[in-house]
Amino acid sequence: MAEFDINILGCGSALPTTRHLATSQIIDLRDKLYMVDCGEGTQVQMRHMRIKFSRLNHIFISHLHGDHCFGLPGLLSTLGMLGRTGELVIHGPKELENYLRPVLTIFCKGLPYEIRINTVDTYQHSLIMEDRSLSVYSIPLKHRIPCCGYLFVEKQKEAHILREMTDFYQVPVRMMQEIKRGADFITEEGEIIPNARLTHPAKPAKRYAYCSDTAFYPNIIPYIEGVDLLYHEATFAECDAARAKETFHSTAKQAAEIAKRAQVKQLVIGHYSARYENLSQLKQEADEIYTDTTLANEGMVISLS
Amino acid sequence: MAEFDINILGCGSALPTTRHLATSQIIDLRDKLYMVDCGEGTQVQMRHMRIKFSRLNHIFISHLHGDHCFGLPGLLSTLGMLGRTGELVIHGPKELENYLRPVLTIFCKGLPYEIRINTVDTYQHSLIMEDRSLSVYSIPLKHRIPCCGYLFVEKQKEAHILREMTDFYQVPVRMMQEIKRGADFITEEGEIIPNARLTHPAKPAKRYAYCSDTAFYPNIIPYIEGVDLLYHEATFAECDAARAKETFHSTAKQAAEIAKRAQVKQLVIGHYSARYENLSQLKQEADEIYTDTTLANEGMVISLS
Repeated sequence: MAEFDINILGCGSALPTTRHLATSQIIDLRDKLYMVDCGEGTQVQMRHMRIKFSRLNHIFISHLHGDHCFGLPGLLSTLGMLGRTGELVIHGPKELENYLRPVLTIFCKGLPYEIRINTVDTYQHSLIMEDRSLSVYSIPLKHRIPCCGYLFVEKQKEAHILREMTDFYQVPVRMMQEIKRGADFITEEGEIIPNARLTHPAKPAKRYAYCSDTAFYPNIIPYIEGVDLLYHEATFAECDAARAKETFHSTAKQAAEIAKRAQVKQLVIGHYSARYENLSQLKQEADEIYTDTTLANEGMVISLS
Repeated sequence: MAEFDINILGCGSALPTTRHLATSQIIDLRDKLYMVDCGEGTQVQMRHMRIKFSRLNHIFISHLHGDHCFGLPGLLSTLGMLGRTGELVIHGPKELENYLRPVLTIFCKGLPYEIRINTVDTYQHSLIMEDRSLSVYSIPLKHRIPCCGYLFVEKQKEAHILREMTDFYQVPVRMMQEIKRGADFITEEGEIIPNARLTHPAKPAKRYAYCSDTAFYPNIIPYIEGVDLLYHEATFAECDAARAKETFHSTAKQAAEIAKRAQVKQLVIGHYSARYENLSQLKQEADEIYTDTTLANEGMVISLS
C-alpha cells in the first residue's frame, strides 16, 4: 500500500509537445487518490500508470487555464461509463462551475454518480477539505487569473501497539484505542505504564505543497515552510526571466529561491515551457540555489514515507 | 506533397485504453488539412505525427459524444497561442455551438483568429463546404444522438500539358488554360488538334467516406457507392452484436457488409471497443464478407493517390 506517493501524470505547460503532457498529479495516500489539476490526456495517462479510477474521490483544480483542466470532461464521462456511484468532489475557483455545468448538461446526461463542485477562494489560505487521513489547504498564488496551490497535510497516524508489552501488562482490549492515541495505562495495582513502553510511534505525518502556476511570490513561504516536498512551477530558464514576469510564471532559479527560503526538505520543479528541449539548464540554475532539485517527469512517483 | 492522404490520429472509442486514442483523422489534400472529429489528445497526436497546425482550416465533427470532440478546446487554444490569424471553420451538429461558446468565453478571451461554427443538418445528405480542391458532403448516420459522416470528394485536377506538342503546334500561351480543361486546339490553317494529343490526363479524382458512429445502416450506401476508401466504425465483434444494436454501433461484419454492397475500393475499420485487446477477430469477421479489410491504427497514413 502506498503511504504517501505523488504521481506525476503530466508536467508540461500550455503548448503541446511530444516530451511532456499537460499538468496533472495524483496523490496516493494510503490507497485513497486525490487528483491535482487535470490537463488534456489525464485519463489516458492514468491508464498508462495503472492508476485505479475507482479510488479517486477528490479533484483539486488550481486555475481555469486549459492545460490544467481540459481533461476533466473526458475523465468525468469515463467515471460514469465505469459505473461509478459514489460522489466525486471537484474543488476549484469560482469559474469552474461555469465551465463544467454546460459540459455536464450536454455530455453527461444520466451520469450514475453525483458531482459536487466546491468553490475555493483562491485568495485565502484556508482548509478546503478534510478526511480521516488528510487535510487540504489552499495556497494563494500570483497568476494572470485566480489561482491557488494546495497543501496536503497528512494526519498523524496512531501509534503501533507493542503486542508483547500489552499482553504482559494485560491491557484490556477496550483500552487499546486510547493507548494507540497516546494514553498511559494504569494497572489494577495502580502502576502507571507510560505510553512509550506500550507503543512504537507512527512515522511523523508528512506534508506536500503543490504550487502551480505562479509568479515568484514569497508570500507563500509561511504556508509551505518545512514541507517534506514542494512542487513548484519552473516554466522558464533565467534567460527568459522577463517573459516569466510578463506571464506570471517562475524561473527555475526563483522556484529554488522559494524552496530555500521556506527550508523545504525536497524540491520538484515542472510546468516546463515547450521551448526547452533539454531541461538540464533549469536543473542547473535551480541547483545553484537549492541543492539537488528534482526535475518532474511523466510517470515519476515520489514516495514521502 | 501529399495528394490525398488520410492520417489516422486515433481510432479507439469512448473508454480510454493504452492501445488506442479517441477518434480523430486528418485528410491531407494537396497540403491543405481537413480534420474529422477531435477526441481528447488530438493536438498531442498531431505533434507526434508532425502534422502542421497552420495548414488546418476546417474541422468536421460527426456528433457530440466526448470521444469525438473533447480535444477541441485544447486545439483551439493552441492555435491561438501559435499566433493563428486566419479563420477556422468548425462544421458540426447544432449542439456544437452550445458546447463551444462557453469554452471560448472562459478560455479563449482575445483569441487572435475567428472561429466560425457551421451548423450541419445531420439528417440530410448535402454539400457542407467546397473549395478549389474539394467538396465535402454530409452522410446521415444512425446513432443515439444526431450524427453524420462526411464524404470528401476531390475535384478533378486539370490535365497536364505535353509541352513538346503545344510547342510543335505553336499553341499560344493564352490558350493553355482552356486546353488544360479539355479544349481542342485549332491551328491558323484550321486544323483541329484533339485535346488528347496535347495533354496527358490528370489522375482521376478520388473520394473518401468517413462513417462513424453508426448502427448498421444500409441507407448510406447510395452516398458512398464506389468510393476509393471507406472508413466505417466497427466497435464490436459479432459475439457482441446485441450490444452493438443496443448502443447504435456496428460490428466488423456489418461494416464489411456495407463496404461490399456499396462496392467500395478499400475498407478501413476502427472505433474499437476497449474490450478487445486483440483485433484479429474483427479483421477476420470483416474479411469473410469483404476481402482484405484494413484495421485502422494510430499513426497510420493511407494514400489514395
